[in-house]
Amino acid sequence: MKAPFHAVPGSIVAPQGFLASGVFCDLKRLGTGKGSDRGRKPDLALIYSEVPCSAAGLFTTNQVCAAPVKLCIPRVARGCARAIVANSGNANACTGRQGMRDALDMAATTAAEFKIPIHHVLVASTGRIGIPLPMPHVRRGIRQAAFSLGSTVADATLAAQAIMTSDTRPKQLAVECRLGRHTVRLGGICKGAGMIHPGLSASARPPAARMLHATMLCFLTTDAAIDARALQAALQEAVARSFNRITVDGDMSTNDTVLALANGLAGNPPLKAGWNIMRRQPEFATFQEALNHLCLELAKSIVRDGEGVTRFVTVRVQGARSAADADAAARAVANSALVKTSWFGGDPNWGRIMGALGYSAASVAETRVDIGYSAPGSRQVLWSLKRGQPTTATFKQLCQAVAPGEFDLHIRLNLGRASAYIYAADLTETYVDFNKGDLSNPAALGG
Amino acid sequence: MKAPFHAVPGSIVAPQGFLASGVFCDLKRLGTGKGSDRGRKPDLALIYSEVPCSAAGLFTTNQVCAAPVKLCIPRVARGCARAIVANSGNANACTGRQGMRDALDMAATTAAEFKIPIHHVLVASTGRIGIPLPMPHVRRGIRQAAFSLGSTVADATLAAQAIMTSDTRPKQLAVECRLGRHTVRLGGICKGAGMIHPGLSASARPPAARMLHATMLCFLTTDAAIDARALQAALQEAVARSFNRITVDGDMSTNDTVLALANGLAGNPPLKAGWNIMRRQPEFATFQEALNHLCLELAKSIVRDGEGVTRFVTVRVQGARSAADADAAARAVANSALVKTSWFGGDPNWGRIMGALGYSAASVAETRVDIGYSAPGSRQVLWSLKRGQPTTATFKQLCQAVAPGEFDLHIRLNLGRASAYIYAADLTETYVDFNKGDLSNPAALGG
Repeated sequence: MKAPFHAVPGSIVAPQGFLASGVFCDLKRLGTGKGSDRGRKPDLALIYSEVPCSAAGLFTTNQVCAAPVKLCIPRVARGCARAIVANSGNANACTGRQGMRDALDMAATTAAEFKIPIHHVLVASTGRIGIPLPMPHVRRGIRQAAFSLGSTVADATLAAQAIMTSDTRPKQLAVECRLGRHTVRLGGICKGAGMIHPGLSASARPPAARMLHATMLCFLTTDAAIDARALQAALQEAVARSFNRITVDGDMSTNDTVLALANGLAGNPPLKAGWNIMRRQPEFATFQEALNHLCLELAKSIVRDGEGVTRFVTVRVQGARSAADADAAARAVANSALVKTSWFGGDPNWGRIMGALGYSAASVAETRVDIGYSAPGSRQVLWSLKRGQPTTATFKQLCQAVAPGEFDLHIRLNLGRASAYIYAADLTETYVDFNKGDLSNPAALGG
Repeated sequence: MKAPFHAVPGSIVAPQGFLASGVFCDLKRLGTGKGSDRGRKPDLALIYSEVPCSAAGLFTTNQVCAAPVKLCIPRVARGCARAIVANSGNANACTGRQGMRDALDMAATTAAEFKIPIHHVLVASTGRIGIPLPMPHVRRGIRQAAFSLGSTVADATLAAQAIMTSDTRPKQLAVECRLGRHTVRLGGICKGAGMIHPGLSASARPPAARMLHATMLCFLTTDAAIDARALQAALQEAVARSFNRITVDGDMSTNDTVLALANGLAGNPPLKAGWNIMRRQPEFATFQEALNHLCLELAKSIVRDGEGVTRFVTVRVQGARSAADADAAARAVANSALVKTSWFGGDPNWGRIMGALGYSAASVAETRVDIGYSAPGSRQVLWSLKRGQPTTATFKQLCQAVAPGEFDLHIRLNLGRASAYIYAADLTETYVDFNKGDLSNPAALGG
């Protein structure tokens, strides 16, 4: 079956009525002149819709969350926004009351530029923790960004670059789909690199959440007409299948944010919330599918561009006793330092995988476990272990299976029917080297 | 106050009536000739008491546990043993029924040499996972080890070397204390290096255990007269304060084992179990203190000799709402890849620590947290953060505080009165390099 959507250029400005820009205002400089992104990339992004939008968002479940996260949660709950202002180089986290004042100031400066209500501006930050924002720089940057807004591919790319920190490349995508007679577009930009194990939730820490870390930001735009509750529901489903299923280093950031704006300029009959209505609307299903695809591709691009990452591994657990067990088993394997280093070495080490399964919170019976490898998405699995016993697969065959830059790791617990998957990366010397910090540069202090 | 014990040479053979040996029988060779320890160190250790002993033990809580662990659990429960046979190079884990037969065979071969009941022999293994033991080598090794038994410091050192895997040095210690008129000695050897985050328990997986991994083995001997239940109680307390409070990489092994033998040759009035009796016996308190010291020093030596470790950090959490919260907060920080790499870089990065605290299962209020550093055991803390706000400590001062090879990290949550500590290590490029495996050498497959 043909996918009901296809890629188009322009990411966040592909949908009608959205403008974007990325400017440089030297937020990392800190007065020392060190660590500046000058000449390298912009560090302040602005996204603006010509008309007010439905808004939805998901935020880090880390108890220590940044000022912009605290600012956005109630605004997103109101369901209406029109602009997103975001900076890299400074996370505005652990900055106390000054941090809240600065986040508000970012929103106010942006609102003043466009003469829109201050609560129609959403704010996000990523970078160093614990250092106040250089607000004169930020304000100047916002004014410049408002002046530079445009709707070309280059404008969107500048915005995507502006939110990058240790990312090596901008991450952006847009898709187009048909909702009945109407052509609808969805676009997004995101950033990731280190501290990647998001646990995103709509508002507060979910009960018994036990999730781990990364600064990832993702901003999505669409010209679909969709009310805020329906957009929030769709975003939650898409994030559950994408950003909440990736891990680079098992650390969860204080700043993780996913925001979505829908301005309705496509003119489709509005998609509305309410379980029954949503399920009976084929247009909603199509929109959801396109949004899922967009989020998944952006999420995967974060893992692939993780700090020092050389291998992208999809850990697929099947046959777990419960969904929670499947998830726990997949995350234990995906976050084991020993398993991740063996991926880096191209070593098909099932002993370490068994060890990680054994200490996970999932029920595991050693004599039931199957472990195997395949090409991404393929069902042709080379099993290295069946029912806890090594198969006839040779060491050389197994090495070949884990040699590519991307492969799937299949784990069958054979105890039940639940399954889960996690997109994971290897652990490399480059990651350690990158994160050990640069002491000649206090600007590298952050998370 | 003077400690009621002092160090003596000889480790496991320091107590009366214990003999030890370490021999080479090439268990890593695997027929390929690669990965052999030939000429480097022995790989089979034997510890033997001239008279039957009270026995106690604690084992990995990993659901995937090795054959020797399965063999020892019921034997230790019977409370009587006389010999310990242990090998490195092969973990005898994930080896199915053959593995159980081989572990039994190791016990039987040892029992036959000494003409003692087979259930008086305890067995331990460490090394590669999933490969059957080369039993002809093992049997020959056991006979040779039985023939080579001795009670000199050199014999104990050979045994300590024989259980090493990626350890760079043997770990051993003995202490002497006075129980009334009687001189009692306690000795121990251990090994660690990678996969270090033990979660040890007397028998089965404790309810709601959520612990993480390393192969660590520790064998303790004493000539104190103490019944098996009292020895088990004392061992549990000592391990709770030592081996269960260390982490190198957050991975928990399939083979973690701590065994203790007490042969009573010191002639003291036997220490007996029963809560009331134990508390009223000052001799028991002295014995416990000596055992605690022995286990703690051995446990710390494991962290210091962890794979690629350059920094030994004691993470001290105070002011948590509950003991579980304190433990969760300390472990989240001690196992965060970002925090551990910052230690490696000598970077006093409190942002990453706050991030890890925030995603831990512990209750944390950003505006209450204090973070500081001190020399090991010192109360002179240089605070970098007070109530969530940076102090006047300069970046240079903080760098100096985290520059030494050993320091304490103090975290006050200021929400309650519970505290916890974890002995942790940094994450270095050497760790990654070591664990990425050596593909020219299938013998490096193990955990």
